[in-house]
Amino acid sequence: MRTTVGWGTDDAAQLRRVHLERRDLRPDDVAVRVDYCGVCHTDLHAVHDRPEDSGLLVPGHEFTGVVTEVGSAVTQFAAGDPVAVGNIVDSCGVCVMCEAGQENFCREFPTLTYGGTDRHDGSTTAGAYSREYVVRDRFAYRLPAGLDPAAAAPLLCAGITVWEPLRSLGVGPGTRVAVAGLGGLGHLAVKFAVALGAETTVVSRSAGKAGDARRLGAEGVVVSTDPEQLAAARDRFDVVVDTISAPHDLGPYLGLVAVDGTLTQLGHLGPVTVQTMDLLVGRKKLSSAGSGGRPATAAMLDFCAEHGVTADVEVLPSARVNEAFDRLRRNDVRYRFVLDLSDLS
Amino acid sequence: MRTTVGWGTDDAAQLRRVHLERRDLRPDDVAVRVDYCGVCHTDLHAVHDRPEDSGLLVPGHEFTGVVTEVGSAVTQFAAGDPVAVGNIVDSCGVCVMCEAGQENFCREFPTLTYGGTDRHDGSTTAGAYSREYVVRDRFAYRLPAGLDPAAAAPLLCAGITVWEPLRSLGVGPGTRVAVAGLGGLGHLAVKFAVALGAETTVVSRSAGKAGDARRLGAEGVVVSTDPEQLAAARDRFDVVVDTISAPHDLGPYLGLVAVDGTLTQLGHLGPVTVQTMDLLVGRKKLSSAGSGGRPATAAMLDFCAEHGVTADVEVLPSARVNEAFDRLRRNDVRYRFVLDLSDLS
Repeated sequence: MRTTVGWGTDDAAQLRRVHLERRDLRPDDVAVRVDYCGVCHTDLHAVHDRPEDSGLLVPGHEFTGVVTEVGSAVTQFAAGDPVAVGNIVDSCGVCVMCEAGQENFCREFPTLTYGGTDRHDGSTTAGAYSREYVVRDRFAYRLPAGLDPAAAAPLLCAGITVWEPLRSLGVGPGTRVAVAGLGGLGHLAVKFAVALGAETTVVSRSAGKAGDARRLGAEGVVVSTDPEQLAAARDRFDVVVDTISAPHDLGPYLGLVAVDGTLTQLGHLGPVTVQTMDLLVGRKKLSSAGSGGRPATAAMLDFCAEHGVTADVEVLPSARVNEAFDRLRRNDVRYRFVLDLSDLS
Repeated sequence: MRTTVGWGTDDAAQLRRVHLERRDLRPDDVAVRVDYCGVCHTDLHAVHDRPEDSGLLVPGHEFTGVVTEVGSAVTQFAAGDPVAVGNIVDSCGVCVMCEAGQENFCREFPTLTYGGTDRHDGSTTAGAYSREYVVRDRFAYRLPAGLDPAAAAPLLCAGITVWEPLRSLGVGPGTRVAVAGLGGLGHLAVKFAVALGAETTVVSRSAGKAGDARRLGAEGVVVSTDPEQLAAARDRFDVVVDTISAPHDLGPYLGLVAVDGTLTQLGHLGPVTVQTMDLLVGRKKLSSAGSGGRPATAAMLDFCAEHGVTADVEVLPSARVNEAFDRLRRNDVRYRFVLDLSDLS
């Protein structure tokens, strides 16, 4: 086994510096020196909601780094290659979903980057709040030249989660897109929608986000607490990207969807209740999405390199991870914390 | 005022023969001798759930008949014309929805054929379980030659309710459609999907519907109570048309939807709860629809004439309306009761 250091917990309180093992390289593995790892809302939930006695939890599932070593059968990567890895590190590879390039929907469930179960040795995966990660080569992506590795890290979870629905819903020139919630997911949804050529609007609880929205490329803001603004924007958007992370009534947001349009709910998982009439009047659709398949992830990274899209990040030395968690809980971040793991060397 | 006879209630029990008034013709009105009126689930609910002291209720909102008289400004119709009328008899005509030909989504709410409020005199509309109806000319549709007027009556509510989503979801050759629930709406959804060129399957609680399904043009049946059949049909259908009228768990039906496909829920109105993961895994969509606009209704009637599509009906003399209600409550109808109003002459 290989050993490395990282940030983990086994008591659901603060993360602390831990030593952890990585597997010896299998023929199709690559070892990655983790340079930057984004801090995702999922990480907060994972730490907060972890079952007792579930062992060491090391979060982190959107990261960039450099290949340090490759397994005997790896041909796509060599030591020194810049790479990026997201929240899926393996899948069955043979089901209809994997064959269609939707490994995120693998019929046998994809192996998650942390808290997952390795398909070969049954061990629990430990995440990338650590200096080294060992990953199956198919789930490492070449980081295109020109993308800042710190600002690119969040593309691998927040980015792909908004990219897949935008693409599958056909967002492009002529599409009217609204993005509700301007956080890690939301600000990338705005950047993508703008870069795809859509007319893009931010929906926010306060008008204070108008400056940021315009800076990100949006044309304006609809203030969701202002009934007049909501009424004026009724039935206006072909796609509403709902990235609000707290449970909330979907009714007002469905009201913004145009006839035959779609509200895609990405920020909050769990049961949702909708009034059929909110869908019926306008033949509106409710959808969800999460993560992405390998082809879409690679295509997104190429698109980002071509259009200069990365996340707006606040980079912190990894030793300040608990501070990042505290501030993320208060939504005090514009728009994604990224841990710099070099302080673990 | 004009007077006519029909079937109504003011005490939520049995329908009884009643006399009722129709307005004198306005310039844009046509008077219709009602020959056939379908019995819709909505009629059951309307009678059963009517508020106390709400006056006389006369159901009926999918009917065919013959124009007997026209207002002074009517140019599209003349006495003797065969016509059909659905569940909308007026709308504001000037909102964005009306201008887009989606009068069913009128911002000021369309005037319903019964239980609605007339936009001019404020009276409550009385339905077409009666020998005469007076309707604004824009909401009467010419009944194409070749369509049996009894079997065509249900097209005006059940038909258009399934037609609009099938068309807006792009159902055609190459589309895989499943229809859940083989009743008034469901059997028409099967006929339309087949006539549109889709590969069509019925989802039913029992295998006993297989013969009927094939006779309607479907390729087969998925038995929803058989876990193996459900598993085999997982992620298979681009469009699932859910016409089940009772509240039910959408999970198993969402499981049948293909990646990027849509379940359109038409049979049951009210709040619905879905698990986000049932939408997320496969980027699936939930939608609803109801009724239709004027252009779609006219297009549907033309399509029906061209493809020979009408409802499978059981025609009863209108005096047997209470029997029809009792049997419809037990789902004992293949597939739509139609009242023959000629016994009211």
